Amino acid sequence: MKPVATTPLSKAKLQKYVKLHQKKFRDQERLFLAEGLRTVRELCLNLPSEEMLVALLVREGEAEVARFAQPWKGKLFSIGEKECAQLSETATSQGIFGVFRQQRPVEPAAEAVSATSDKSLIVALDDVQDPGNVGTILRTAVWFGADALICSTGTADRYNAKAVRSCAGSIYAIRHYGVDRLERELLWFKKQGYSITSSSLEGKDFREFSSWPAKQVLVIGNEANGISEPVKALADRLVRIPHSGRSVRVESLNAAVSAAILMERLVLS
Amino acid sequence: MKPVATTPLSKAKLQKYVKLHQKKFRDQERLFLAEGLRTVRELCLNLPSEEMLVALLVREGEAEVARFAQPWKGKLFSIGEKECAQLSETATSQGIFGVFRQQRPVEPAAEAVSATSDKSLIVALDDVQDPGNVGTILRTAVWFGADALICSTGTADRYNAKAVRSCAGSIYAIRHYGVDRLERELLWFKKQGYSITSSSLEGKDFREFSSWPAKQVLVIGNEANGISEPVKALADRLVRIPHSGRSVRVESLNAAVSAAILMERLVLS
Repeated sequence: MKPVATTPLSKAKLQKYVKLHQKKFRDQERLFLAEGLRTVRELCLNLPSEEMLVALLVREGEAEVARFAQPWKGKLFSIGEKECAQLSETATSQGIFGVFRQQRPVEPAAEAVSATSDKSLIVALDDVQDPGNVGTILRTAVWFGADALICSTGTADRYNAKAVRSCAGSIYAIRHYGVDRLERELLWFKKQGYSITSSSLEGKDFREFSSWPAKQVLVIGNEANGISEPVKALADRLVRIPHSGRSVRVESLNAAVSAAILMERLVLS
Repeated sequence: MKPVATTPLSKAKLQKYVKLHQKKFRDQERLFLAEGLRTVRELCLNLPSEEMLVALLVREGEAEVARFAQPWKGKLFSIGEKECAQLSETATSQGIFGVFRQQRPVEPAAEAVSATSDKSLIVALDDVQDPGNVGTILRTAVWFGADALICSTGTADRYNAKAVRSCAGSIYAIRHYGVDRLERELLWFKKQGYSITSSSLEGKDFREFSSWPAKQVLVIGNEANGISEPVKALADRLVRIPHSGRSVRVESLNAAVSAAILMERLVLS
């Protein structure tokens, strides 16, 4: 197979793309940067429309990458070792990057929710700090058919490189947005008939609930501190995942694991 | 409070500890290295016995760290910026490291299992490659009271720094060991009356099983390829986690998330 002919990336574009490591510039440009063959390929396979892909950046000589990038020839740019090192967050880069557009902002919030369905799950993150957890929760929310993911200001950015990697290509498959005050957003959902369920170590064993409301918001709290007081005060149900075995030998579950177990219980029965 | 007086770390020890980044040396020395205040503190709080902690290495001037390390004064060594950079895997190190002993090896395998109980869950990893997944699965297995974690040769090392971090201090709370041939190990468990359940995208919806055997091994496969053929052939049950919503918008769940949902379903009912 003939290698794909590519244009070298301009200095101006390189500078712009390197800045996408910073949230400030990601938000300003409404773009994000993804790294690695698997992550970039998964995103390309799940594009909602072609224009969401802005550019594919490939280190010279990456044959496998060039093959996969064939359909996007016009957006393909070659980079050298030096550019690769500037763009990469890892010590041993695979030499492939994608620049993608962020989702259109949700405005007003109501847009995020399908008004037609009588069943709905919304997942809300109350200062979940680890970007890997945020990405994994997003991916799990997509699997369980959630309608939206809402992030408090203290929650890690969904467009952080590690979060994007953990999404495994599902970042466009759900509406997600940040809010300044999560409790105000939750109040809005309550008024629309949603019930608020929060995970909490002080909550009731989830097996004590025999059924779950058709419309619900599941709130997942911070890894170390759990859900905040204003959010706890709003919750209709506080639930915990019971441990098993002779004694508790670990303090808690990982936040993405708790979120997954609760989503599964709330959605599948 | 007076700062704790610490001995500077010797060159010989530094060289030995830096090598612990490599699996070969970890296995040879039967030690592992942990980094970061939270991780090291969690491990120290969950030591099965004092001698499992070999050394605490703290950058000069870390007051908070020195306070936490008070009970282990005799094992506390100070390091400078240069040593810190050599030991660290991150660009912005917190300046705290712990050197710990690995679990005593399990020999023979039978030792891992409590013969007295009629209920038992064993978790087996069939080439789970991401160390974060391995650590998270270990932590979840501890939460759900599993008796042992078995790792195939292609599974990421439990003593890799990222895996140790994901364990959140639970690495001593469960017997875990590696095996050369996972299918042979599973056969051994079958002979002891265990039923083998494997997660598989081709399996049955787990809701189709109304009950679960008292003694079971749950096998979690590789992130990209699932469980291997010899292991699949041995399985008594192949199960999958159904998705929800109008259409599948993501290919799969994260391996640690699948493992958690299945453990929860197998153990809690």
